[in-house]
Amino acid sequence: MKKIAKIGSIGLGRQGEQHAINLATRVQGCELTAICDMDEPKLNAFADKYGVKHRVKTFEDLIAIDELDAVVIVSPSVFHAKQIEQALAAGKHVFSEKPLGVSMEECVATEKVVKKYPGRLFMLGFMRRFDQSYRYAKAKIDAGEIGKVVLFRAYSQDPIKYIKGAIAYGPTSGGQFLDMSVHDIDLARWMVGSEPDQIWAIGGCYAYPEFGSYKDGDNVSALMKFKDGAMGFLFAGRTANHGYNIETEIIGTKATLRIASVPQCNLVEILDGHGVRKECHDNFLERFEAAYVNEMQEFVNCLNEGRKPSPTVDDGYRASLVAYKCREAFESGNLVTTGL
Amino acid sequence: MKKIAKIGSIGLGRQGEQHAINLATRVQGCELTAICDMDEPKLNAFADKYGVKHRVKTFEDLIAIDELDAVVIVSPSVFHAKQIEQALAAGKHVFSEKPLGVSMEECVATEKVVKKYPGRLFMLGFMRRFDQSYRYAKAKIDAGEIGKVVLFRAYSQDPIKYIKGAIAYGPTSGGQFLDMSVHDIDLARWMVGSEPDQIWAIGGCYAYPEFGSYKDGDNVSALMKFKDGAMGFLFAGRTANHGYNIETEIIGTKATLRIASVPQCNLVEILDGHGVRKECHDNFLERFEAAYVNEMQEFVNCLNEGRKPSPTVDDGYRASLVAYKCREAFESGNLVTTGL
Amino acid sequence: MKKIAKIGSIGLGRQGEQHAINLATRVQGCELTAICDMDEPKLNAFADKYGVKHRVKTFEDLIAIDELDAVVIVSPSVFHAKQIEQALAAGKHVFSEKPLGVSMEECVATEKVVKKYPGRLFMLGFMRRFDQSYRYAKAKIDAGEIGKVVLFRAYSQDPIKYIKGAIAYGPTSGGQFLDMSVHDIDLARWMVGSEPDQIWAIGGCYAYPEFGSYKDGDNVSALMKFKDGAMGFLFAGRTANHGYNIETEIIGTKATLRIASVPQCNLVEILDGHGVRKECHDNFLERFEAAYVNEMQEFVNCLNEGRKPSPTVDDGYRASLVAYKCREAFESGNLVTTGL
Amino acid sequence: MKKIAKIGSIGLGRQGEQHAINLATRVQGCELTAICDMDEPKLNAFADKYGVKHRVKTFEDLIAIDELDAVVIVSPSVFHAKQIEQALAAGKHVFSEKPLGVSMEECVATEKVVKKYPGRLFMLGFMRRFDQSYRYAKAKIDAGEIGKVVLFRAYSQDPIKYIKGAIAYGPTSGGQFLDMSVHDIDLARWMVGSEPDQIWAIGGCYAYPEFGSYKDGDNVSALMKFKDGAMGFLFAGRTANHGYNIETEIIGTKATLRIASVPQCNLVEILDGHGVRKECHDNFLERFEAAYVNEMQEFVNCLNEGRKPSPTVDDGYRASLVAYKCREAFESGNLVTTGL
Repeated sequence: MKKIAKIGSIGLGRQGEQHAINLATRVQGCELTAICDMDEPKLNAFADKYGVKHRVKTFEDLIAIDELDAVVIVSPSVFHAKQIEQALAAGKHVFSEKPLGVSMEECVATEKVVKKYPGRLFMLGFMRRFDQSYRYAKAKIDAGEIGKVVLFRAYSQDPIKYIKGAIAYGPTSGGQFLDMSVHDIDLARWMVGSEPDQIWAIGGCYAYPEFGSYKDGDNVSALMKFKDGAMGFLFAGRTANHGYNIETEIIGTKATLRIASVPQCNLVEILDGHGVRKECHDNFLERFEAAYVNEMQEFVNCLNEGRKPSPTVDDGYRASLVAYKCREAFESGNLVTTGL
Repeated sequence: MKKIAKIGSIGLGRQGEQHAINLATRVQGCELTAICDMDEPKLNAFADKYGVKHRVKTFEDLIAIDELDAVVIVSPSVFHAKQIEQALAAGKHVFSEKPLGVSMEECVATEKVVKKYPGRLFMLGFMRRFDQSYRYAKAKIDAGEIGKVVLFRAYSQDPIKYIKGAIAYGPTSGGQFLDMSVHDIDLARWMVGSEPDQIWAIGGCYAYPEFGSYKDGDNVSALMKFKDGAMGFLFAGRTANHGYNIETEIIGTKATLRIASVPQCNLVEILDGHGVRKECHDNFLERFEAAYVNEMQEFVNCLNEGRKPSPTVDDGYRASLVAYKCREAFESGNLVTTGL
Repeated sequence: MKKIAKIGSIGLGRQGEQHAINLATRVQGCELTAICDMDEPKLNAFADKYGVKHRVKTFEDLIAIDELDAVVIVSPSVFHAKQIEQALAAGKHVFSEKPLGVSMEECVATEKVVKKYPGRLFMLGFMRRFDQSYRYAKAKIDAGEIGKVVLFRAYSQDPIKYIKGAIAYGPTSGGQFLDMSVHDIDLARWMVGSEPDQIWAIGGCYAYPEFGSYKDGDNVSALMKFKDGAMGFLFAGRTANHGYNIETEIIGTKATLRIASVPQCNLVEILDGHGVRKECHDNFLERFEAAYVNEMQEFVNCLNEGRKPSPTVDDGYRASLVAYKCREAFESGNLVTTGL
Repeated sequence: MKKIAKIGSIGLGRQGEQHAINLATRVQGCELTAICDMDEPKLNAFADKYGVKHRVKTFEDLIAIDELDAVVIVSPSVFHAKQIEQALAAGKHVFSEKPLGVSMEECVATEKVVKKYPGRLFMLGFMRRFDQSYRYAKAKIDAGEIGKVVLFRAYSQDPIKYIKGAIAYGPTSGGQFLDMSVHDIDLARWMVGSEPDQIWAIGGCYAYPEFGSYKDGDNVSALMKFKDGAMGFLFAGRTANHGYNIETEIIGTKATLRIASVPQCNLVEILDGHGVRKECHDNFLERFEAAYVNEMQEFVNCLNEGRKPSPTVDDGYRASLVAYKCREAFESGNLVTTGL
């Protein structure tokens, strides 16, 4: 018999809606049984369109739905820690978007909470690990094709056209290392297979002094040394003119892999008065559309098969710790050690 | 109320299975209600895995299922013409893979049959029109961004590693123009917006004389002049060493568009002892995975909304006619006029 | 003892000046001993700047200079046939820019003339054979790396920004096949290693009806079958928006080679509001700067070493014949046989 | 009157021979009047082949040649400081390959020496500034097209196939920052227009422990903050499998420029069993062939026109200082301040 996991999802923001649509229409082996959002018109519109059985306005109501096997948490970051704990306590399996919490203390606490419920599955939303290109690269690394990792380099750049939103959202974002680079840090740990040890971070406000008011920059970078000796270089920025630019390079002793060094939005090449060019991706939902589906499919497969999913809470804790250490290095101007 | 079209699909070959999986799992607004194949173990395995209500071994049994709104025909080409007619006569809407028939006479007859049932929806499987990159290019053409079309160039190349299959399948394939170039002919008509008028075609057996035994080649090409003056160049081959290579170029008076001139299988670039390289697509199901879903989604949307789908039977008839004329030009060595 | 060939050059137009500068400054083993042009101020300015010993205004005066070993002919095409004959008769070795003459009759006659003087070296200016990338590709073909040639495809496109000059120059250009495609025809013969046999050619005036007044088009193409069975597709156009686009592809049974499919003017990639792009070459002198030097160096080396240079007069005759046959096919609308 | 600078060159190693050939055959406005090398057979062969008037075995003999205007120093690095001083004292203008000396003290001393002879021209061999692509990028930066520089990233990687030579040469190379990154440091100063201020450097021996015996690595990197706030990331390695990889990226607030992110050796693209690929440059003389000519041409033009050349001794001193500070950071593990 095919198992059908019953899932409730909280959050109908941009990313939350995408997750909910994927659960309702593209992920196999599950049913989006309940949807939760405070915005009643949005909630009703969604539930009607996708025929969702339960519609609730509070997380407490969501986890009270007995038939739910699991909840998917895509609420504002400030609620993550508490909701993860509530859901686990209510006996639900949990998928949560990053971060585990909005302070290092919350992340530490959440890790402990998750470990208190070994019978409950927990998965953190680092969707890049489920992108086809990253998986292809990871398989080559695991097969030894690039030799030993020498340098991991990652850029995460948002398009400058979204700068107003970035400025508005900035103060609650945790800063660029926590908001953007944390995905690169997760990729780094996954691909290098070692933990960042020492970090130095620099950057500044090259075009938008607004970010400086809470000690962030519009463009920042960090150099890190991993415990196994590998080097890591991270760059994050808010002012990319060409599009949403997520590129990653892994230089090994035998070969180098580059993922998406041109963030082309499709396979069309244009030859016109600007030369020969490729138009680029606009945002993360577009770039990682398939990765979001694959990630949730894996969560559902784990539910139906009783497997432990990955990335784990520990991956979330460690990536967050490194991101906080980057921020500490950036703010202090000092070399910082992660202690991992 | 959301409509759910009930669909029966015939054929569990490679492409047929993909269509059936898409209907069962990825296309919204439909139910794969029945599945049909002569191979009983395969039929049962599929029906069990995807929970299909009806499983039947003959097309007659399939169209006798009263609750079906539509059938999807992915049987061997030799059955298409007859099955399309049977299904329409039985009151079903029809999606059929190309071709409309295995002779020009059959294609002509099928077109007439379809037109006899104006109340039934009919859609032909030219999936490339539903590929994101082709749609992006088409939108630019329609917006006037490339000016007037000067030259349409299209390559359809199969990987040489599948040459044994190609040789085995060749005699019933209709030859390369009908088997492979017909997709490019459809794209050409769609993108140029005019009909091919005059054609010359050449080619030969450069590595595999086997194809010569039924007057085909392992690599062939055709130059055509469209009625509006545009030029078209088609190339089809069975011996591409780098992968499944479907590339298209549209040169206009203002700009040129190229789709997939490098058939990269993902966004990974490899720097190793062979230089800087991209690995390539392996086959049509991989390259056009999303296009197959989009195409079937459009068919289902048309079913649920009562819209006429496209590509139409007329598109199928005309593309087939041009492909037959290419073959005639190739076999005769003469300039040939399509009469369109 | 190092030999120093003494050379006189006629023509200080754009291309002629480039050749003369190369002879004066970049080609080793020669001396630009004399320069000839009707435009006296230009002649004097050049001779002064480069310290040229003799400056003359007529070709008769040039070949009368006793110490000259060879002449380089970069005069208007209408004079080529006569000047080649005069120079050979005067005992000079000859390098001539294409074409051998402005009619097929002149080309035939010139070929005979050159063969009448077996003791005189003759070289025709098909500079592309001396471009590093084309040589690299040719070496791979000769080494068997691509197997048997299946398709030779070549584009020669001028930037649309030079359309006014193209229109003005058009009537005396011989048409696009003779003016532009002849270089591709030479490359095709060189790389395929066989002669074009049958040809069909189409095209038209897609943006500039002016070219139609003498039966040319602004964009034209030809499909040809070589005697060994290989296919050839040539495209020539005057309306490329992205730059000077000379691209060539050779599809073999084992591999495919593409030369300059992106006509990038250098190694800079720009990521800005237009996407990720490369700016393109502007003109033939820029694209083939080094090829012009290499070509003349080979001529001088042949002079100093007494070797026969290549491309030969026969290469010139045959390429011209094929170009004329393309034009005939274009004008008549018929399939044409070259008779080679 | 055209001036012809008379130049003597010391050193017939690989790079020295290239400089000497360029002076003898490709650079305009000069005469390679004398050549100096200890290796007598090589010296004679070269002088004979290129018709050099004077051949001498010691630098003292070279600068004693009265008619020489300038000397070009391409001797082993250990002699640079002394020979620069001797040549200036002898009244010669000087072009010297980097470095100015083999210790920071020597660099400081050489800078003072050069400034003692304001009437003598001095130019340092940072040839990358004369590469067409770097100049193109610099012009765009100067024109404000990329806005303010945010991040300068540079890779200098040698092919792994030369690893044996690198190991043998390593102990006298000064380490990777001085041997390789110093060129990137010069580019950084030139393109960013500011001085590196703070530096952290890491790396190690990922494949070849040999480099560790003198505190170097086979791959190293440095992150630096410039005085104007810009970020700089340098990577240097000895183990690139794909070729000689010199790539540079300048991310600005308005646009990003990348130079040679694929170190393609020419314009040929190969489609074969390895995918779609470009073969890569092999070494610095090949990649920067034209830059070496352009650089020397600029030196000769300065000689003939009495202009001050650039890069200056100060550029050399500052680039060396930064490279030494990178090495200090690497060896100590500490953050280091340049004091510039």
